[in-house]
Amino acid sequence: MADKVLIYSRFPKTMVARFAERFDLLDSGGKPAREVFSVEELAGVRAMLTAGGTPLGADAMDLLPKLGAIVCYGTGYDGVDLKAAAARNIAVGHSPGANAASVADIAMTLMLAVTRRILIADHYVRSGDWAASRQSPMMRPQAGMPGRRVGVYGMGEIGRKIAARCAAFESEVGYFSRTKYDLPYQYFPTLEALADWCSVLMIAVRAGADTQHAVNADILKRLGEDGYVVNISRGSVIDEKALVAALIDKTIAGAGLDVYEKEPHAPDALTALPNVVLAPHLGGHTLESHVAMQNCVLANLTGFFEGRPLPYRVKSA
Amino acid sequence: MADKVLIYSRFPKTMVARFAERFDLLDSGGKPAREVFSVEELAGVRAMLTAGGTPLGADAMDLLPKLGAIVCYGTGYDGVDLKAAAARNIAVGHSPGANAASVADIAMTLMLAVTRRILIADHYVRSGDWAASRQSPMMRPQAGMPGRRVGVYGMGEIGRKIAARCAAFESEVGYFSRTKYDLPYQYFPTLEALADWCSVLMIAVRAGADTQHAVNADILKRLGEDGYVVNISRGSVIDEKALVAALIDKTIAGAGLDVYEKEPHAPDALTALPNVVLAPHLGGHTLESHVAMQNCVLANLTGFFEGRPLPYRVKSA
Repeated sequence: MADKVLIYSRFPKTMVARFAERFDLLDSGGKPAREVFSVEELAGVRAMLTAGGTPLGADAMDLLPKLGAIVCYGTGYDGVDLKAAAARNIAVGHSPGANAASVADIAMTLMLAVTRRILIADHYVRSGDWAASRQSPMMRPQAGMPGRRVGVYGMGEIGRKIAARCAAFESEVGYFSRTKYDLPYQYFPTLEALADWCSVLMIAVRAGADTQHAVNADILKRLGEDGYVVNISRGSVIDEKALVAALIDKTIAGAGLDVYEKEPHAPDALTALPNVVLAPHLGGHTLESHVAMQNCVLANLTGFFEGRPLPYRVKSA
Repeated sequence: MADKVLIYSRFPKTMVARFAERFDLLDSGGKPAREVFSVEELAGVRAMLTAGGTPLGADAMDLLPKLGAIVCYGTGYDGVDLKAAAARNIAVGHSPGANAASVADIAMTLMLAVTRRILIADHYVRSGDWAASRQSPMMRPQAGMPGRRVGVYGMGEIGRKIAARCAAFESEVGYFSRTKYDLPYQYFPTLEALADWCSVLMIAVRAGADTQHAVNADILKRLGEDGYVVNISRGSVIDEKALVAALIDKTIAGAGLDVYEKEPHAPDALTALPNVVLAPHLGGHTLESHVAMQNCVLANLTGFFEGRPLPYRVKSA
């Protein structure tokens, strides 16, 4: 029997080609599987590859009676209904840590770009306003990194890499997570306390029902008018409407975002703002992290088809 | 006798106001002093405040017969003719290190912004191209920081801070400077060897006649098609025409620039390019570095008028 794998999300062709060398792929190109494939074709599928944030519930699983493994591309698996998978004895795998440095680096990029106003600076040069000595209120000196208080929300692999980078910038680093770790950063027992303390809030927490809209109007108010939010986790962690309101009325100074509530859409009210830097969910999008994530996918699929446990199994699944 | 200080370059009014509390200022607003003040007025000037990059030669000094101190705002003093100052027994002071972290941070900001293509990413989101799933060749995955070879040219206070930050990004760090230091980075005996080795060249060398156009067409070719140049030192260190040519014909991948040969002008050929991130010489432009630089200026001027040596005297002057 061929090792049939359903490609459930939309992935680049070059990446799919690499998996096609090893497995018999049914690529739905991101469309609902039943629109693209017949019941008979889907009946033979034993494993599927999905983007972790793509909703994947019991109904989709039930279209695949032989499904034994859901493999997520990347570290996230928040779109997967883990209970439904467990009830059907379906293993769930992901790529833990494979993109941690790449995502931490985009967090740093967004923080530096928004606090040092690099978009405005670049436009000031390109427009000729600098050469004409035109004043720009957006070019006033800003607080730099030394002594700045950076709060990291979530202390997994990505959070730790963000913290280490911020420490090298001579910033003070604090964090909030469910667990207090033996780390050289100040621990805060609540997100509220962290927001009261810090001027940049770096969101690196794993998304899920318990973190849905954790960063709300109250947290933003605590961050204050010289405060920034950077989110490289999932859009669901921030109440996006509250964030847009806080950015418009200057409750906070700015935001750097790689993720949004309804990707690939960033709200018009957000894209109109000068005090944000926006990226199209490319945190994990470097050559080396793609290779590392693909290696995790291959290891998970190979392990599954050889009858072994997934080497990168989601721990709570 | 009042402590008369000529403000030789154009500085923000709020800054000049702070110095006016202590000294009797003649502010030329960046215009030639003789256009603004009479010979009699200038005759009483005993000290002057200048931006280190502003040309300041023997002719300007000779307009001020009582001049005893030239105080530069910032770490640079490349505009000052040190021999002419020494011949007239004029002390030259600056603000060493006061803005080092701020400048190193803008170097990191430019490096991350250009290598992760943040301007293009932000435009991709704001334009709606991401929401429309339009492909962008500029959005292909790029090499990230882990394992990247970053070469630092110049290992003074700014260079060291850049190196420490890059190490935290899990990059390999090498450097070239006249002196080999006891530092945990690979030393290269020539700029050519450093350019052959690295994929990002961070220019942090002190500007002067010996570094004029040190980064030329040959160095850029050695850097190669996956290479980037970041300059936060002075525009004079790069052959700007060669850089523009290398960016256009893809001899190198991109550049992040805070400084230019003829500020405040960035050449049209440069501002038209998509693979550059441009800043208007704002490296030292943070709240805390301005305070630190102003403190150096006040210390230098106070020391001079009290008959002491300048506390932050230019060593080679």
